[in-house]
Amino acid sequence: MHTLRPALLTDHYELTMVSAALRDGTAHRRCVFEVFSRRLPTGRRYGVVAGTTRLIDLIREFRFEPADIDFLRRTGVVDEQGADWLADYRFTGDIDGYAEGELFFPGSPILTVSGSFAECVVLETLVLSVLNHDCAVAAAAARMVTAARGRALIEMGSRRAHEEAAVAAARAAYLAGFRFTSNLAAGQRYGIPTAGTAAHAFTLLHDDERAAFASQVATLGTETTLLVDTYDISQGIRTAIEVAGPKLRAVRIDSGDLAVIAQQSRQLLDSLGATETKIIVSGDLDEYAIAALAAEPVDSYGAGTAVVTGSGAPTAGLVYKLVEVEGRPVVKRSEHKGTIGGRKVAVRRHKPTGTAVEEVVVPQGVPDHRPNDRLLQRSYVADGDPMALPTLDESREHLRQCLISIPWEGLKLSAGDPAIPVTVVPAQ
Amino acid sequence: MHTLRPALLTDHYELTMVSAALRDGTAHRRCVFEVFSRRLPTGRRYGVVAGTTRLIDLIREFRFEPADIDFLRRTGVVDEQGADWLADYRFTGDIDGYAEGELFFPGSPILTVSGSFAECVVLETLVLSVLNHDCAVAAAAARMVTAARGRALIEMGSRRAHEEAAVAAARAAYLAGFRFTSNLAAGQRYGIPTAGTAAHAFTLLHDDERAAFASQVATLGTETTLLVDTYDISQGIRTAIEVAGPKLRAVRIDSGDLAVIAQQSRQLLDSLGATETKIIVSGDLDEYAIAALAAEPVDSYGAGTAVVTGSGAPTAGLVYKLVEVEGRPVVKRSEHKGTIGGRKVAVRRHKPTGTAVEEVVVPQGVPDHRPNDRLLQRSYVADGDPMALPTLDESREHLRQCLISIPWEGLKLSAGDPAIPVTVVPAQ
Repeated sequence: MHTLRPALLTDHYELTMVSAALRDGTAHRRCVFEVFSRRLPTGRRYGVVAGTTRLIDLIREFRFEPADIDFLRRTGVVDEQGADWLADYRFTGDIDGYAEGELFFPGSPILTVSGSFAECVVLETLVLSVLNHDCAVAAAAARMVTAARGRALIEMGSRRAHEEAAVAAARAAYLAGFRFTSNLAAGQRYGIPTAGTAAHAFTLLHDDERAAFASQVATLGTETTLLVDTYDISQGIRTAIEVAGPKLRAVRIDSGDLAVIAQQSRQLLDSLGATETKIIVSGDLDEYAIAALAAEPVDSYGAGTAVVTGSGAPTAGLVYKLVEVEGRPVVKRSEHKGTIGGRKVAVRRHKPTGTAVEEVVVPQGVPDHRPNDRLLQRSYVADGDPMALPTLDESREHLRQCLISIPWEGLKLSAGDPAIPVTVVPAQ
Repeated sequence: MHTLRPALLTDHYELTMVSAALRDGTAHRRCVFEVFSRRLPTGRRYGVVAGTTRLIDLIREFRFEPADIDFLRRTGVVDEQGADWLADYRFTGDIDGYAEGELFFPGSPILTVSGSFAECVVLETLVLSVLNHDCAVAAAAARMVTAARGRALIEMGSRRAHEEAAVAAARAAYLAGFRFTSNLAAGQRYGIPTAGTAAHAFTLLHDDERAAFASQVATLGTETTLLVDTYDISQGIRTAIEVAGPKLRAVRIDSGDLAVIAQQSRQLLDSLGATETKIIVSGDLDEYAIAALAAEPVDSYGAGTAVVTGSGAPTAGLVYKLVEVEGRPVVKRSEHKGTIGGRKVAVRRHKPTGTAVEEVVVPQGVPDHRPNDRLLQRSYVADGDPMALPTLDESREHLRQCLISIPWEGLKLSAGDPAIPVTVVPAQ
């Protein structure tokens, strides 16, 4: 059993750079690194900040253990001076950034890490791994929540993702408004409500469907969901209601033309007196399939593959760029990857009605203050000390409010431009 | 710091099914579960088995700790009988499957898990998480290796994947024939050679490019790779050779029209006497971009996003299905997800020349033996005891041999049918 030690979840070159910079004295130069995206996935109208709290917890544990340092010395990744520095490593700088659940757009400075070059650069890989994954899942999940129009969503994609990524994906989906996850570790670590009832295997295990339903109801009561599509769906529903009675909480359908079957199932349930029994559908649902079921009598959606893989955009395209050295803006030349130098401050501007109109980013200064401005950055770590962080439920509510604030076109599932522009303006 | 305990990396319903099956006595029925894919990602010609060894190591640690059981009791996932059973859980059954590095096709039974219903069903989520992730990465990586035609590939996608998924992705890419990874944890855990030199930030940190190159060479020697595209590439190459001399190992170019720039860079290096200095290119390379550079003077490719996200197919579509209960084949009815009941045995048939011609899968029996047949399944766990496993390098060599054995059309990057058919035949 190995322990999750974050320090080696790091690219080789971060540490060779540290070694070289320690030798030449530049390791201690004061630097500012910034996390931002150059573009959203094609056609997406917003990104969702997710994973920052998880990241800060990992940075708190970011230490090089003797076994790690032995490995790095043995393989020649660091020299003796580098090894000594790593042994004492503890991040002592500042981290500021957008709140979890905040929206972002191309150019939004969602995280700013400042300190010595060496202490900041070693965090690059971890920062990007966490944010690129969690933001990708949260953005896809948020679109599914919009498509579901208030109906409950259950995240059930663990089996389609790396086993630890699955836990982070469950967290990101919940942040985005999903109501439940099937992932038990996500329940244990983050307090997310878990849900789930039975697979087709459970029905096949039994002598017949009736025996399987009777067993499930005997153990879990009628507040359960019976999976009715192992054999014939209509017969499955009849058997479910015969066994559980009309107070059965829900049936789940995982196959077939869900629009047609949901209607037929609702009629059948009603005719059996099970008017309160809910219909849960699942089976390769993405935001478009969910939207297409809006008019059908569906109560909840189970989403798996699409949500944990970011529905076509499995990584958020965030980069971690050096923007300032010893107070001086820096920028590399390759134009198609152009970045703007200098530490930035960001505000979102709103109409008096509360609708967001633009995001203003000011390098090396502060924006002029206008009514209905909202400052987007907060302190996560100051002089190496982590600040108190919002709860996951608070971040979830923050995203809900943010999505209410953007222009209505921003919530369309169809391809389009970012919901609001990001304007870079010189300081006043 | 939390420990990687695999038992709760599990879907809620696996444990509610166990609770119900324990109550009704079916939990102890002898069952066979099978892992297979119904189809390959669109246009792909083969799948690659990856992750099995990693999975077996996790199953070895699959235990429910008191804190896990408290959580499951408190949240009502299991009842008292279920909790007692989980406390004693240890997998005592058999696991057989394809070797890591083996190819697979739709219907190939790549893993077979047999034992009591309860002990097998609780492994479902973990089995699928590991295999769906690792197989997805390995399949994409194998296509890149083919496209690279013997040139070295460096996996550098950690920052585009969940931090732990990144380590597994590095392992899968190496299995598929990548030569290096940037991920240090993959080096530490799996002995994979790590590589990497410097980022643009290292150049920007310094007063000028020359100072950055001089620092890197002072620490790492001339057996290093200088990143020459922070400012002007031609000037960068001149400076690199001035600083390091014509024995510099390599330059890396991460932007621009790589085909044109590789040619210009080669000419410039040669004109400077650096005829042995290698050119490494990177920047959003996938198998198609790599193939397009085949005629250019490129020595190595760095691949990131595309490899760790499965190049358009981030999950392998593997399912874990109950196929046999107490020796009797079982199958659910929903036709578009039709499975074939019964434990299966698989062989791959070859021409006398060694070229694979078909895979034959026999439910509930053994295939007739023909010359040049190769049995595809091996024992991973017998009566709960893990067998000795091949090393990662052995699995890597196995895949290399398998890719040589398939018909040449199977290696084309263009969309097509599976390289060989899988035929299901009754036992002789």
